[in-house]
Amino acid sequence: MNIKLSLKILSALIVFVGVCLIIPLIISLIHHHDGEGLRLFIISSLSIIIGSALFKFFKPQSKELTHKDGFFIVACGWTIFSFIGALPFYFSKYFNTFIDAFFESTSGFTTTGSTILTNIESVAPSLLFWRSLIQWLGGMGIIVLSIAILPFLEIGGMQLYQAEVPGPTKDKLTPRIEDTAKLLWLVYFIFTVAEIILLMLGGMSLYDATCHAFTTMATGGFSTKNASIAAYHSAYIDYVITFFMFLAGINFSLHYQMVFKQNLKCFLKNTEVKFYFFINLIATLILTISLIINKHYHTISDAFRYAVFQVVSIVTTTGYGTADYEKWSYLCQFLLILLMLIGGCAGSTGGGIKHIRIYVYLKYTWNQIYKIIHPNAVKNLKIEGKIIEENIVSSILSFIALYFLVFTISSILLLAFGGQDIVTSLSAVIATLSNIGPGLGNVGPVDNFAGFTGFGKLILSFCMIIGRLEFYTILVILAPDFWKNIKYN
Amino acid sequence: MNIKLSLKILSALIVFVGVCLIIPLIISLIHHHDGEGLRLFIISSLSIIIGSALFKFFKPQSKELTHKDGFFIVACGWTIFSFIGALPFYFSKYFNTFIDAFFESTSGFTTTGSTILTNIESVAPSLLFWRSLIQWLGGMGIIVLSIAILPFLEIGGMQLYQAEVPGPTKDKLTPRIEDTAKLLWLVYFIFTVAEIILLMLGGMSLYDATCHAFTTMATGGFSTKNASIAAYHSAYIDYVITFFMFLAGINFSLHYQMVFKQNLKCFLKNTEVKFYFFINLIATLILTISLIINKHYHTISDAFRYAVFQVVSIVTTTGYGTADYEKWSYLCQFLLILLMLIGGCAGSTGGGIKHIRIYVYLKYTWNQIYKIIHPNAVKNLKIEGKIIEENIVSSILSFIALYFLVFTISSILLLAFGGQDIVTSLSAVIATLSNIGPGLGNVGPVDNFAGFTGFGKLILSFCMIIGRLEFYTILVILAPDFWKNIKYN
Repeated sequence: MNIKLSLKILSALIVFVGVCLIIPLIISLIHHHDGEGLRLFIISSLSIIIGSALFKFFKPQSKELTHKDGFFIVACGWTIFSFIGALPFYFSKYFNTFIDAFFESTSGFTTTGSTILTNIESVAPSLLFWRSLIQWLGGMGIIVLSIAILPFLEIGGMQLYQAEVPGPTKDKLTPRIEDTAKLLWLVYFIFTVAEIILLMLGGMSLYDATCHAFTTMATGGFSTKNASIAAYHSAYIDYVITFFMFLAGINFSLHYQMVFKQNLKCFLKNTEVKFYFFINLIATLILTISLIINKHYHTISDAFRYAVFQVVSIVTTTGYGTADYEKWSYLCQFLLILLMLIGGCAGSTGGGIKHIRIYVYLKYTWNQIYKIIHPNAVKNLKIEGKIIEENIVSSILSFIALYFLVFTISSILLLAFGGQDIVTSLSAVIATLSNIGPGLGNVGPVDNFAGFTGFGKLILSFCMIIGRLEFYTILVILAPDFWKNIKYN
Repeated sequence: MNIKLSLKILSALIVFVGVCLIIPLIISLIHHHDGEGLRLFIISSLSIIIGSALFKFFKPQSKELTHKDGFFIVACGWTIFSFIGALPFYFSKYFNTFIDAFFESTSGFTTTGSTILTNIESVAPSLLFWRSLIQWLGGMGIIVLSIAILPFLEIGGMQLYQAEVPGPTKDKLTPRIEDTAKLLWLVYFIFTVAEIILLMLGGMSLYDATCHAFTTMATGGFSTKNASIAAYHSAYIDYVITFFMFLAGINFSLHYQMVFKQNLKCFLKNTEVKFYFFINLIATLILTISLIINKHYHTISDAFRYAVFQVVSIVTTTGYGTADYEKWSYLCQFLLILLMLIGGCAGSTGGGIKHIRIYVYLKYTWNQIYKIIHPNAVKNLKIEGKIIEENIVSSILSFIALYFLVFTISSILLLAFGGQDIVTSLSAVIATLSNIGPGLGNVGPVDNFAGFTGFGKLILSFCMIIGRLEFYTILVILAPDFWKNIKYN
């Protein structure tokens, strides 16, 4: 492990956050004078100064990074980001405790979208912009993490995507990671700008359009309005956002193929995208029918509009709301919970278990039934004609196993110490583990997470980070074995 | 597939049920004259006559049975049993529809214990006895199924137990299955008699003691009292039943070792039993503490008594109640739901996923984390020092996967057509899939399943059977591939 280089990189990230803080500072100064300017300036300056000092202090002898460094940087990176991101919240008047501010910031950087705020519209515009910006930055991080880093750490079947974009080689993370990142971020940037323009055409201000485009592309779900997207009462805006949420839930390496290689076929060939489309379609259909039967909406077009928005918002783990789905039928609610578990595609900004893993899980289960009927048959698990190696299948199954294990332990802790009922607590754990935002009960789409105890909020913050970083990243560095034989030199 | 021999065996089972029906007939005639005698006589006679006729009609050319026959006999056997067992209920005045009667009978033969009856004590004693007897018979069936048949069908890791008792060889089911069955049933019988005696010493009548011993050893949970075991207000009876439920939740091949080979050490060496003991202990401890903190009981001994009874009742999937756990803390309720999923040990009369599978799942997940930390390490999954083969691990993981898949599909159907809320429906699916009995919400420990629609009851009956027969048994015969190339000759 190259601990000095890792720490140097983390120092650079501190500088980076400090630089990013200049944007809300500008917003505060020029447009609004909302009283946050001085505090933002101090936090930004300190981050840049301390980060730069640390950056100079660490002088690594080698420029090579290993597996272990990858885990270390990723886990510490997100935690440091969440910590610094919380400072502007903490020193403002809108948050009571540091835990609340840390929860909000973690919910941002992990692109979760759960909030502590009870009255969003009363918050200073510069802070709301920061809240959206950290989701957008979190989304950038996730794309690079899931496409360029996780496959090489061999986590949870991400190896399936190893060949799709230019990336680092097996044992060394550094060489081409920068090129990959730049290309992917360019796509992310183009989509964000396109959404800003389209939202402004629908009547949104530049400020609101930017905030919402940031949190759409990150599948984060923070809004500048108390009523979320419902505040706009516009079918056009609903559909624009639905479209971009849907895009954000797809593997960005496919978007890269489309943008830079004009390869549209890649979407049609990709098994995960087909499965993603299928799941969205089926869920929207069932919800539309249920909404009409139960007379929640009078026209099919209204039922479809609200069904598709809620389905895409939940399945991509964005978490925007245009309807209070807790008033819908129990079947609708259960389907939405299932969608929360599934999440987006691998390599997207969406969270959850991911479509490809669910697909492999279903196919694997089917194969096992087939094998029992035909004890002598040899049946390999294939995707797009290629046989999936046994160890990749194993790592996908154990990823799902781990998801439910962490869910169970977190739920026990939250029920014991979180101070909320069973539906609220369990759905809060799913909503944070899958990085969605809202859940059910007291954390439903029109509620917030303020009701949990401080310890409860810490548990949920941990859930957001461990879920966002695909479990293994965090568990690995928590294992005592990880820290054996590490020398600081 | 030897379809004629399979049908001949099923015919013999019909005769067997007919003969068993003589017992409630005798109870009706001699002890109670409860008006069910004539109907029981007709159903019993018809079963014996029709069964015998069919038995003579089928003349198989070979005496060998294959895998496929095993699946066929088991799946049809339980369904036929449930059907005939429902007739005395249907023709009595206590059930409104055949679906209700079928639900009750299925709940019996699968040793589930969910009931449609709203006033149990008003039902004729002969029918209540039949209700307990079918659970006892179901328990007999399960012991033989899980120890002597499933391992050779290679279902869900039961192969682990292949060597423990004398059983059939890999490709032929028949040879030593009879010997195995007789020995296991003898143990089952001895335990039942011991419990009857101990319960009578506590003041129960012979009738009540027999009924309760039947449903304890089968981990069924049908009671002759509306208030279940709470009706007796006796710590002695609570502890006797707790002890026998605990025994019934352990692999009967270990009981066989103890009874016939005086080998007590086998319990101490067995990983699953140690894990089972550990889970029961931890759950009881947490519940006891929670009950004291929340002031549900005033003394530690009372809190322990009710905690241990409910824990053992749920984890063994018996489903007796001495307390309304829905009034306990949310943490207690969630822990009880987790215990519902775990279930008993493999080879016991308990349902659920089984301890050994949960143990393998946990160990496997841990190994995967270890492998990611140490990419070059070779770490095999070992139990009691023996390496567990990859294909056995796979079949255990896919069993768990299948459990949740069936849970998900059944829940969707039940929510759409069952007419109950989300907590009631989901817990009803778990309670029936794991063959427990009570769930939460409107199917809590002091409620019953009468509130579901007819179709809902059918779904739940299907859940009981598919859960009881370890999923694959039913799914395999539902697959079109199973029926290819089958000739009736």
